[in-house]
Amino acid sequence: MITMRKILAIDAGGTSTRAVVLDLSGRCLGYGRAGSGNPTAAGVDGAVAELARAAQAAVNADASTTDRGSFALIALAGSGSPVFLRRVSERFSQLGFEGQLIVEPDLLGMYFSGTSRRQGYALIAGTGAVAGRIADGRLELARGGTGWLLGDDGSGFWIGHRVARAVVAALDGLGPPTALTALLLDSLAIETTVGGVRGRPHSLVSLIEGTYSQRPIDLARFAPLAFVVLDDPVAREILSGAATALAELLVATRDSSIDGPVVLGGGVLVAGLRVAPSIFAQPLERAAGGAELTVVPDGVVGAAVLGLRHAGVRVDEDLYLRVKGGVARLHQEAA
Amino acid sequence: MITMRKILAIDAGGTSTRAVVLDLSGRCLGYGRAGSGNPTAAGVDGAVAELARAAQAAVNADASTTDRGSFALIALAGSGSPVFLRRVSERFSQLGFEGQLIVEPDLLGMYFSGTSRRQGYALIAGTGAVAGRIADGRLELARGGTGWLLGDDGSGFWIGHRVARAVVAALDGLGPPTALTALLLDSLAIETTVGGVRGRPHSLVSLIEGTYSQRPIDLARFAPLAFVVLDDPVAREILSGAATALAELLVATRDSSIDGPVVLGGGVLVAGLRVAPSIFAQPLERAAGGAELTVVPDGVVGAAVLGLRHAGVRVDEDLYLRVKGGVARLHQEAA
Repeated sequence: MITMRKILAIDAGGTSTRAVVLDLSGRCLGYGRAGSGNPTAAGVDGAVAELARAAQAAVNADASTTDRGSFALIALAGSGSPVFLRRVSERFSQLGFEGQLIVEPDLLGMYFSGTSRRQGYALIAGTGAVAGRIADGRLELARGGTGWLLGDDGSGFWIGHRVARAVVAALDGLGPPTALTALLLDSLAIETTVGGVRGRPHSLVSLIEGTYSQRPIDLARFAPLAFVVLDDPVAREILSGAATALAELLVATRDSSIDGPVVLGGGVLVAGLRVAPSIFAQPLERAAGGAELTVVPDGVVGAAVLGLRHAGVRVDEDLYLRVKGGVARLHQEAA
Repeated sequence: MITMRKILAIDAGGTSTRAVVLDLSGRCLGYGRAGSGNPTAAGVDGAVAELARAAQAAVNADASTTDRGSFALIALAGSGSPVFLRRVSERFSQLGFEGQLIVEPDLLGMYFSGTSRRQGYALIAGTGAVAGRIADGRLELARGGTGWLLGDDGSGFWIGHRVARAVVAALDGLGPPTALTALLLDSLAIETTVGGVRGRPHSLVSLIEGTYSQRPIDLARFAPLAFVVLDDPVAREILSGAATALAELLVATRDSSIDGPVVLGGGVLVAGLRVAPSIFAQPLERAAGGAELTVVPDGVVGAAVLGLRHAGVRVDEDLYLRVKGGVARLHQEAA
């Protein structure tokens, strides 16, 4: 029996992480999921633990016990600090993937999850927002992705931050009433009571205390609330602003000499096009300038494709579809 | 010789702190300044140290060695945690002010720095932004002041944050070029060099790394840059947005039954009305609805007035002017 080397391919996002074990023929053998594997979002300890958890689940699900592991590849926003990469590498070595850890941009993982073509565009809006131009299989240009404090307009943080600010403004008498208030207070188990402290309602004081005791980036978890009350003018304006910002981000990566598909990924774009197409579809179609738009749930297929390429395998349309189908099958089995 | 009790009155701001020692006749005896005495802005350790430093300077400047200290009063945004108040109280006791530490809202300190009247309005825009309605000498209603993450539109943080985001957008090709870029990079000693990393200019990478390694609230220090390039459309739009937000904050405190002066304080309003009156004056005058507008540099006069009231002294116009004149004289001598 011929033993064939295996690759561990991982898409590490700000909210969740997906891992797949595959062999060099593109056969997908095991699949696992875990929480955020991004050290900026989860901290180094948290990200290392979640990456190891996703990888362990994928390895456990792999029944092909005779094969040998070779190396691991992570698709990640940012390049990761040396200490983070060393610790991740140690954990993957323990799982049998002892070759050098490869890190690729999350934009490439997302892009190659949606197409086998070697040039085009990717736009991700998850916790953060980033767009890129891909030429000759490499990331030629990136825009955005400058983080919650300095950029990421239209991202999950940006939406969640605006949701929280709109609710605070409404409770403080500085903004219009919004259906988001009840949703947000409910999600934090804050009761709407009469009375207040220093001329402020109790619910506002509780919301302020609750929010400042957490990390700012945690405001991203309020983003889904905006998609729940699409009839609310405040929610609608926030989402409309996000759609415009994301369309502008995509336009900023366009180059007339690079033609190709536009791959969209991340929770905001997936939810935006599925739940609120009347807000998101038109600005994005216009920004794509007639190019084909593909929405992908995550970047793990692309991480697998990038892994195969690093192993010297040429990935054509057939092999791409084989990997994509394999990941979809394992994902469904794991669900 | 009759010994007269003395009060230590302090205005603790997000950027700086001012302390005055005065006797019950309103005679100002010593004055001192230090950095931020606000525990939210400076941390508990930092705020305690700066409050003690300002107080020590005021006590050192007081030549009336025969008098006894009585109690201290701080005008502060927020009410301060028990541990913070206990530590401040210990330090003031060591300086001879052993009575119970009184904490009053910064809005009252600012208001009574600008008028002897017992009803009216105060608007502060320093690091944060807050407005209040004063009736019968007490703070009847406060709006804003919900902090950098959830509110404070128009504040120093809000302006500085927008300055930083505008520069990042310009460097990232997502926003218009602006004169703020050179100012901001210069203030951080970042060189504008050719070339980049992962499709990003070096200066953008340095700016991102430099900013995320600091506390978010530190972005407030970029606010003054907007006042330097008033001809720049990006800077002008940021300041115009701040003026509008601050005017709306003031309007939200108005009550037709409460007539009185509007006292404005804090670095943004002082700079706004002095350096950029074409942007700030009209929206604020309209928001004041014809009421008299008074700009004060800080809230230490009001802290002294509040201290006298707590000691049972009735503060009329003459006494108010005596305190105001005394603080101004000591401030000038200390400069």
